[in-house]
Amino acid sequence: MADDPRSDKITPVILCGGSGTRLWPLSRAASPKQMLDLTGGGTMLALTAARVGNHALFNPAIVVAGEDQADAIEAAMAGIGSLVLEPCPRGTAPAILLGALEAERDSGPEQLILVLPSDHLIDDVEAFNAAVSRGIPLARQGWLVTFGMAAGRPDTGYGYIERGEALADGVHQATRFVEKPDAATAAGFVADGGFDWNSGIFLMKTGAYRDALGHYAHDLLTLGELASGHRREGIRVHADAGAFARCAAVSIDVAVMEKSDKVAVVPVAAGWSDLGSFAALAEVLAPDADGNVLEGDALAIGAKGCLVHSDGPTVVAIGVEDLVIVATRDAVLVVPKDQSQRVREAVEALKQAGREDLL
Amino acid sequence: MADDPRSDKITPVILCGGSGTRLWPLSRAASPKQMLDLTGGGTMLALTAARVGNHALFNPAIVVAGEDQADAIEAAMAGIGSLVLEPCPRGTAPAILLGALEAERDSGPEQLILVLPSDHLIDDVEAFNAAVSRGIPLARQGWLVTFGMAAGRPDTGYGYIERGEALADGVHQATRFVEKPDAATAAGFVADGGFDWNSGIFLMKTGAYRDALGHYAHDLLTLGELASGHRREGIRVHADAGAFARCAAVSIDVAVMEKSDKVAVVPVAAGWSDLGSFAALAEVLAPDADGNVLEGDALAIGAKGCLVHSDGPTVVAIGVEDLVIVATRDAVLVVPKDQSQRVREAVEALKQAGREDLL
Repeated sequence: MADDPRSDKITPVILCGGSGTRLWPLSRAASPKQMLDLTGGGTMLALTAARVGNHALFNPAIVVAGEDQADAIEAAMAGIGSLVLEPCPRGTAPAILLGALEAERDSGPEQLILVLPSDHLIDDVEAFNAAVSRGIPLARQGWLVTFGMAAGRPDTGYGYIERGEALADGVHQATRFVEKPDAATAAGFVADGGFDWNSGIFLMKTGAYRDALGHYAHDLLTLGELASGHRREGIRVHADAGAFARCAAVSIDVAVMEKSDKVAVVPVAAGWSDLGSFAALAEVLAPDADGNVLEGDALAIGAKGCLVHSDGPTVVAIGVEDLVIVATRDAVLVVPKDQSQRVREAVEALKQAGREDLL
Repeated sequence: MADDPRSDKITPVILCGGSGTRLWPLSRAASPKQMLDLTGGGTMLALTAARVGNHALFNPAIVVAGEDQADAIEAAMAGIGSLVLEPCPRGTAPAILLGALEAERDSGPEQLILVLPSDHLIDDVEAFNAAVSRGIPLARQGWLVTFGMAAGRPDTGYGYIERGEALADGVHQATRFVEKPDAATAAGFVADGGFDWNSGIFLMKTGAYRDALGHYAHDLLTLGELASGHRREGIRVHADAGAFARCAAVSIDVAVMEKSDKVAVVPVAAGWSDLGSFAALAEVLAPDADGNVLEGDALAIGAKGCLVHSDGPTVVAIGVEDLVIVATRDAVLVVPKDQSQRVREAVEALKQAGREDLL
């Protein structure tokens, strides 16, 4: 193993399976959030790939995605190592397992993987890379390393990780995972100072992940190994649909991270956002003097604190405050910024109404 | 004259010159408010024409409009007597003069005309007709008869007429005209009870109007007579552009009604609205249980008191209150209901920006 240069490098595993209903009507089934250019710098997937594009440090990326996204991803992204295709969505634990098994195929269970959601923003890539470097020695020792993003506000849209004792310089044992808390709990976490946002980014040996699954989610491991690498076609790797469908649909947090006592957290302030709502998107875009972010053919008259985005019609906002207004050729959304997570209700209502043309 | 049956009937003069920027983006230069079906019952112009369609009482209508609207009006409306075309917009006093001169062409100065804006709503046509009947004897005596609509609220978007002594059953001398007042003044008028909204509807002999103009706006009368009937082409009557352009741009209220002491007002409760803003439009449309009016492909989720209208994209309003949201194929407007008169600022801004495509 030591002779294989691949194992000294990290293999990025980019999770590209999200449907991104939270940014409807921009995100659609055919153009999920990771395929959108939300910040003017390229698609979220392209930004994610660029983040791990240094070939001195990283092997070619493994992208894990749904079958229906394969063509779009291949068209949009050069230099993919493998494009691992999920026959159906089963959450992050099975998806990461498919990626991990593909990563260790040539280089064995000591291979480090860096699991990255494809639709998050990281403003300060240097700070992030430094955090990854701090995590490497622990990951090599078999720790499941998470990255805790500085919790700048009591956001109830994120999960939180509690820092325990220091394991190394800038690396702590993770003592608790809390899924999206209520407002009071989130405020308590921020006041306490001992909690970071759970970024969904992980650094670990493929073997360490398999070991953890074997311990806490044995059936998932068995079924995932059975499904993995079923059929190869160029860079595409198809999983077996029958076996994969029988995997429990579960997140890596629930399957492993919340249970294992070998989880580390590397705190990092890197300007991270999951852009999980229009409010989160508005946070990272530069507002004008009235606090408005105007994108595309948009005009604000006496409006304040609004995000107005158009891919289609001219949008004029007059005298409104703290609204999200998003217009495309075929759909318009208007919602208060602080209720922007309710976009999911719109998607659900349109689904119920059979409006697949809009989804 | 008594032998001419025309003079026993009233000639409607329908004013069709408004550009209707207050309902942008529904109303445009090429499709002004009077050409829109805002209530589901037909265009405002068609509703206005139907109101005076009883041939036992009314002669064929004279429509006064801008040159650029001639084709649209002829295509939309059958049975027009004359289509009098203004070379340029000069306000209601000159427009009504052109209509009056056309009306008296065959039947002389005793001819009664009923001047009607083409873009107002009258819910109770019977009540309105009864009011017109009450006004006829006074109009025949030479009074300029106005119709005072029951002021149901202290609206600052309307002008007000003060009722003086009774001239006949249900007809009063008009003692004061007040243009759009401030909120306190409007509240005082409504509390007083002696004021009605100025509907911009007038009943008078053509000769009486000419006499009043001769007294209070002599130049306008001279220039209007010079411009009138310059060129005839089927039902179209073109005014002379040079003479008409020299007419003062002035409303009939300012030119005559505010000055003459021979003005009567017939109070009437007829469910009238000038639909002069989206708030006014929302007032006359039936809201659902949440107070929303949804027109076209519109969906409300937890929204209250909104007017959501789409001629184009699907519009989804989530959690917003008392907003006007109007979407067309090429433009979207979002404005609080109580600021909907600010739509004019949008039209002005688009004009400044050279966006003629949207106007």
